[in-house]
Amino acid sequence: MDKKSVNIGVIGCGTVGLSFIKNLISKKKIIKEKTGIEINILKVFDKVKSKINPFKNLSALSAEEIIKDKNIDIVVELIGGTDFAYEFCMKAIENGKSVVTANKALLSKYGIDLFKKAKEKNVYLGFEASVAGAIPIIKSLKESFVGNKITKILGILNGTTNYILSEMYYKEIDFEKGIEAAKKLGYAEANPSLDIKGYDTAHKILILSYISSGKLFSIDDIYVEGIDRIKIIDVKFASEFGYRIKLLGICKKEKNQIEIRVHPVLLPKTHLLSLVEGVNNAVYVEGDLIGKSLFYGEGAGGNAAGSSVISDVVDISKKIVSKNFVEENFVPDENIFLKPFDEIETKYYFRFTAIDKPGVLAKISKILGDNSISILSVIQKQDNPKKAVPIIMLTHKAKEKNVKKAIKEIDKLDVIKNSTITIRLEEELM
Amino acid sequence: MDKKSVNIGVIGCGTVGLSFIKNLISKKKIIKEKTGIEINILKVFDKVKSKINPFKNLSALSAEEIIKDKNIDIVVELIGGTDFAYEFCMKAIENGKSVVTANKALLSKYGIDLFKKAKEKNVYLGFEASVAGAIPIIKSLKESFVGNKITKILGILNGTTNYILSEMYYKEIDFEKGIEAAKKLGYAEANPSLDIKGYDTAHKILILSYISSGKLFSIDDIYVEGIDRIKIIDVKFASEFGYRIKLLGICKKEKNQIEIRVHPVLLPKTHLLSLVEGVNNAVYVEGDLIGKSLFYGEGAGGNAAGSSVISDVVDISKKIVSKNFVEENFVPDENIFLKPFDEIETKYYFRFTAIDKPGVLAKISKILGDNSISILSVIQKQDNPKKAVPIIMLTHKAKEKNVKKAIKEIDKLDVIKNSTITIRLEEELM
Repeated sequence: MDKKSVNIGVIGCGTVGLSFIKNLISKKKIIKEKTGIEINILKVFDKVKSKINPFKNLSALSAEEIIKDKNIDIVVELIGGTDFAYEFCMKAIENGKSVVTANKALLSKYGIDLFKKAKEKNVYLGFEASVAGAIPIIKSLKESFVGNKITKILGILNGTTNYILSEMYYKEIDFEKGIEAAKKLGYAEANPSLDIKGYDTAHKILILSYISSGKLFSIDDIYVEGIDRIKIIDVKFASEFGYRIKLLGICKKEKNQIEIRVHPVLLPKTHLLSLVEGVNNAVYVEGDLIGKSLFYGEGAGGNAAGSSVISDVVDISKKIVSKNFVEENFVPDENIFLKPFDEIETKYYFRFTAIDKPGVLAKISKILGDNSISILSVIQKQDNPKKAVPIIMLTHKAKEKNVKKAIKEIDKLDVIKNSTITIRLEEELM
Repeated sequence: MDKKSVNIGVIGCGTVGLSFIKNLISKKKIIKEKTGIEINILKVFDKVKSKINPFKNLSALSAEEIIKDKNIDIVVELIGGTDFAYEFCMKAIENGKSVVTANKALLSKYGIDLFKKAKEKNVYLGFEASVAGAIPIIKSLKESFVGNKITKILGILNGTTNYILSEMYYKEIDFEKGIEAAKKLGYAEANPSLDIKGYDTAHKILILSYISSGKLFSIDDIYVEGIDRIKIIDVKFASEFGYRIKLLGICKKEKNQIEIRVHPVLLPKTHLLSLVEGVNNAVYVEGDLIGKSLFYGEGAGGNAAGSSVISDVVDISKKIVSKNFVEENFVPDENIFLKPFDEIETKYYFRFTAIDKPGVLAKISKILGDNSISILSVIQKQDNPKKAVPIIMLTHKAKEKNVKKAIKEIDKLDVIKNSTITIRLEEELM
């Protein structure tokens, strides 16, 4: 009889690891009924011994023990970080084991190596849990949309920053208070800079763009801006104009040029992405056949990510009990190049802080015009001849390099009292 | 060497069929690069000869020719209807071929037979395109959420009715004008009753509930109400109260009781489903691990459905080139029963048409109270002592049978001038 059971080793028993182990055990019977395959957890390791004590006879003495175990078919890596994780995953693959990981930092850095080695060894690498928790975006891009040329991906991919932005909006509090609230609820780490500076989102959009475009770019090559410069005043002005501010990972492809970037964005309140609140995630995808689509769900938490790990484990188990290895390549549909950030065109929200006197707007507009930036609307929010007042402006599409140059010139004007705030704007999505 | 090519026969060259064939051919190369598998269309049949003429040497003389062809691995059935489709699919499976279909009527009626036969013959049945066009809801429920107990599915599953409701809302037109607009754009058929009476949505929610609960119920056993009784006045009142009216397919599971129903629903405007406009579809899913999630996308059109057919064909091709058959069972996680519709509890929107005189509300409230229906809010929209005026009421959760009984009594009151309009209301979803 053919082999119809698959054995798992788990490295890392944090929130996701524990949820995965608990749920896989409790759902073992129904998974067997659905697929005919028995999935067993054989060994579990965590460097914190107290975490694996509850598993008694399953507990391994080291990660090595799991990676070397001849009876283990799939190694589930849930330790995070890039150094040990890379070593463990690579060795597991070299030993002929498939790997399931939730590690976005690892994949965005070493994805190419790992996938290459996996193909060489005829094993599989599952990573659904690495992006957007419970949302099946990896599988959908890889399998459901296999016939599509993906032209746009815009994602709210980081729960911490989305929570902070939601708090700022609803409670009208500033960024610092937003972070405090997130920390209190465990939504932000003690040092949340990976999240708030946009790097976590960057890892994830790099993975999504890899799957959809076939090319993995480096975080060093893309523009990454976090939410730490977002002020409550801008959240409020944006709202008045009918927009929400969200941190997006963006990947757009046109012909053989791809743009990948991470930054806060003004989105129309009627856009589905605007309604994604708190720690939830969402991914908007456009493709040549599917048109416009959106996925929404829980982006974090043990069960949400654990659900995606289970899905990967079951999928790979099905492949393991099949005899033939099926390739899974991320293939560029043409020779694509990363568009230089300076060449990117977006609409813009500007907040100037200017002395309230005649001729100010003329000076600003002149510089913008000289830099081919066309104004859509402008509103001066207060009048107070004694003090500097905010002037809010929305523009038509303009080139990044022109905006940078114009703002630099404008900020040198003696009527401008503070650095101008610039936030990009996305429309025409749905 | 192992077989790495798979041959397809297509029966039915309508909008979806043509798009599928065209796109599979144009994307054959990239699919081969991604999967290592060459997928060939070997034969194509349509009873309208002019439709297959362009395919020249691919065109078959009959559906039989395709079903019997020893070289064909997968039969793609895109003719619609239930009689011939059933015959073709069943015969294809009996002949050891996998089948891909977009036919929701077929599956909701004969799904059990077809899946049983497919398992017996070690072949696969793909049906992603049968529900919600390009949205990968079937695969997500089957594979991505394999570890979940699915507790709720609410879907906007019919583009025609959603288009009509969007038109009514934005253009403030009545239902008949909405249908006309849909017909003009080809969004509604000459006889659109399958859509507007809710049967199409019913087929789809039955399929989704089958996958998620493991049991396929009959359309005859569930409550199905369309949008043909929705008046523009109710769309407007709902809007005033902060709600949109949408036609939903609903499946809720609690312990071993499942409720499946199709009817118009008042949804808060802030709910993501409320923002699904025009012919788009969306499916909201809750599960024990994933929490709350939503899928949005194009529900109809050749390319959208064609994309899902391609996805099924590629998936099944991967399985075909693998040697071992992997089971795919829809398993009830307990012995579930369909909850009688009378026992279902929902909130309600009522529109009474009553004579404007003192004591009317007392009479209505008395009957509601006697039937354990508790009022949340009530507004009389005009005052005009000479004429009947609308009284709008929102209720707390009440049992269907109590509502039916109460409304029957109320409509007998001499102060009530027209049959009372009742629309169910869903909240607390996100």
